[in-house]
Amino acid sequence: MTVSALADPQAAATSADFADIRVGGDIATFTLQNGMEGIVIPDHRAPVVTHMVWYKVGSADEAPGKSGIAHFFEHLMFKGTKNHPAGEFSAMVAAIGGSENAFTSNDYTAYFQRVAKEHLGTMMTFEADRMANLVLTEEVIAPEREVVLEERRQRVENDPGSKLGETLDAMLYVNHPYGVPVIGWKNEIEALNKVDAIDFYNRYYTPNNAILIVAGDVTTDEVKALAEETYGKLERRAEPGERSRPEPQTVPGEQTVTLSDPQVNQPNMRQAWLVPSYNTAEGTDAEAIDVLAQILGGGNTSRLYEKLVVEDGVAAAAGSWYQSSALDDTRFMIYAVPRDGTTLNELASATSAVLQNVIDNGVSGEELERAKKSLLSSTIYAQDNQATMARIFGVALTTGGTVEEVQAWPARLASVSVEDVQAAARKYLAGSPVTAFLKGPETASGAANTAATGQKS
Amino acid sequence: MTVSALADPQAAATSADFADIRVGGDIATFTLQNGMEGIVIPDHRAPVVTHMVWYKVGSADEAPGKSGIAHFFEHLMFKGTKNHPAGEFSAMVAAIGGSENAFTSNDYTAYFQRVAKEHLGTMMTFEADRMANLVLTEEVIAPEREVVLEERRQRVENDPGSKLGETLDAMLYVNHPYGVPVIGWKNEIEALNKVDAIDFYNRYYTPNNAILIVAGDVTTDEVKALAEETYGKLERRAEPGERSRPEPQTVPGEQTVTLSDPQVNQPNMRQAWLVPSYNTAEGTDAEAIDVLAQILGGGNTSRLYEKLVVEDGVAAAAGSWYQSSALDDTRFMIYAVPRDGTTLNELASATSAVLQNVIDNGVSGEELERAKKSLLSSTIYAQDNQATMARIFGVALTTGGTVEEVQAWPARLASVSVEDVQAAARKYLAGSPVTAFLKGPETASGAANTAATGQKS
Repeated sequence: MTVSALADPQAAATSADFADIRVGGDIATFTLQNGMEGIVIPDHRAPVVTHMVWYKVGSADEAPGKSGIAHFFEHLMFKGTKNHPAGEFSAMVAAIGGSENAFTSNDYTAYFQRVAKEHLGTMMTFEADRMANLVLTEEVIAPEREVVLEERRQRVENDPGSKLGETLDAMLYVNHPYGVPVIGWKNEIEALNKVDAIDFYNRYYTPNNAILIVAGDVTTDEVKALAEETYGKLERRAEPGERSRPEPQTVPGEQTVTLSDPQVNQPNMRQAWLVPSYNTAEGTDAEAIDVLAQILGGGNTSRLYEKLVVEDGVAAAAGSWYQSSALDDTRFMIYAVPRDGTTLNELASATSAVLQNVIDNGVSGEELERAKKSLLSSTIYAQDNQATMARIFGVALTTGGTVEEVQAWPARLASVSVEDVQAAARKYLAGSPVTAFLKGPETASGAANTAATGQKS
Repeated sequence: MTVSALADPQAAATSADFADIRVGGDIATFTLQNGMEGIVIPDHRAPVVTHMVWYKVGSADEAPGKSGIAHFFEHLMFKGTKNHPAGEFSAMVAAIGGSENAFTSNDYTAYFQRVAKEHLGTMMTFEADRMANLVLTEEVIAPEREVVLEERRQRVENDPGSKLGETLDAMLYVNHPYGVPVIGWKNEIEALNKVDAIDFYNRYYTPNNAILIVAGDVTTDEVKALAEETYGKLERRAEPGERSRPEPQTVPGEQTVTLSDPQVNQPNMRQAWLVPSYNTAEGTDAEAIDVLAQILGGGNTSRLYEKLVVEDGVAAAAGSWYQSSALDDTRFMIYAVPRDGTTLNELASATSAVLQNVIDNGVSGEELERAKKSLLSSTIYAQDNQATMARIFGVALTTGGTVEEVQAWPARLASVSVEDVQAAARKYLAGSPVTAFLKGPETASGAANTAATGQKS
């Protein structure tokens, strides 16, 4: 079955019709002699390519006390190399009408460009160059550290929701580096130096820790030949070692955190549970949690939205999401924004009641079918976007997945039953969540001990 | 000034009279060729000695994922060596009428015996033997792992207060190993094996990571000669490296955790703040916090007790304490037990109000003087107990302190002013604490979102 056959998957087809789709189509893979993996995703609709390099390193691989180095390093990769001054690569991408980007997560760091197909070799030459020849001096590092600190100030310290998110993650991920923010703790960013950068580069930016993903109007032979000429010339600089982090702990008790900040004009509530990821789940538990997140809080037909926003009118927004792709156990989140007159505690009770109903009574076959179709069609539509498709594989391969697992995901998803969804809710969401309340200055109700703490700022 | 001149320090003397006392008296120190330190605390009142060996390793030095190994290792030290079967050392201590013990903390592990003075050499021979010749086989380790797991079950898992304490520590010590329980997380204890034990032994149980403390009826020359004959023969097996842990983070928001358990028949409330330790504090901030803990919650004349227990009758008990000795930042705790009719939230408001009063209005000269005298006289009385005195030095030397600092502590404490106490309260206790509520099954009031979480167990 092809994508074009499913022009309107929401309407006619059933989820079973999607089960035999292989995500990404006719994908080819290869491994260079130095250990670098290659993946080619054909897409011949336009003469463009998306070129990505993914490194199997993210903030959760950082040494204790060195938080932020993975993200900081992403910045440094845009500095000069032995062969090209800082800015030349980016200027060139712009000059040929391309676009570029980079991102750092808990589990991966990735760099990509989208360019006309004839420029693929040039992109690979530049990308291979900065994998091996980056110039890391104190002169390069010191000003970039200030840039990152400013980024932290703007994105976290000036944003009460982000600040509260850091506390929530720290509470949820006990004994695990997912509790450390990707951007890093302020004092640890301040202390990052040239030695840290060089050590990180040498250990993790070695071809055997990298994955090349090319999606677009190219053949596997072309990509492989170019890869051998560029990345293939690089030496394996280190063995990055096993990515083994301690198991996160579930500690007893109902944990809550409340942040009151004059900057907040829209209070909200979040509840977080520690759940397995696609990599750590048994059987199709992760697929069942994906479906559950969709039924419970995916969009305007979800249980949370229907009950809290439409029916009871206590919330202006409500939903849930599942961070499914992670090397280790991950989070399931419920969020809600109160309408005037509803306290955050009342809102937390209301969302918990909706969840409890699923735990107690399960979901309907109709809900299941709608959720599956929605999830499947998202993935099918993603095939329309080269970068999104490449990203799906990049994320999977840096969080413990395989190409085969991604390709066969529709079949696994299609196999999820109503019993599986209820069982997943029971197994993973019956315990107390960690709850975060974000409040504006005048919202006094709902805090556990407002009187006690209200007088101290 | 001698101890005997202060027979009733509470009554006549002022704290200034104590300022020139040197804790421990005429202490001698030496270092063996292999790097092991020695401290001799003379005490000739009876023909007995207390012999201790302290290792500069505790649970906070454990590698991620290996929690519990420091404490587990303390158990293993009572197993057999190449020269003596398991139990021989302990049987011998008992046979000569001595006593022995061992303990593991976040920052140190220590072993001691108290025996008649003529047996000191024998104790040192045995203790040196197990520092170098321990037999670590799977046959030794496997059953002891079960013992430790049983210890965890009894002490933590069957004790709601301890369970809640683990959650509280995890919330308070963000990004720092003090958030990991000394006994270890269950799944990590289960995975500890022979390789872990041998690695730990070789890295940390080397003479250059150990401190010998002998208190009692001996001369420095005697102790030094015996130490050279025993510990002095051991080889330096490793350089344990710098004890550098990441700085704990103070995350924003008012954090609370509530544990409801049918086993609880006495609810209580704890509030915890992250504060500097004697090792990390600037100037005399730690001494000021010590005084503050005393004024606020040290005994039946303290502010918390007077206000909550005596005056308002809302609490059956209330107090505060400061874990002053720690290599890194540590905790200041307020606790209270409610009287019937008082909710835990009300109690938290009441303790916070007492603290806020100190922050706003400071303490009186009379309170300061009483607190200092109480702290000083505790230390002076400690000189009456060999083991306690030896322990004071052992704790200090394994948490970043020096003999000289311990000896001169009374002078530093005497210098603390009422302004210092108020400043310390303002600087370190004005932020939101992490609050833990322990509840019995029927105590429904006070939870942040009882309705939401009460239905899920």
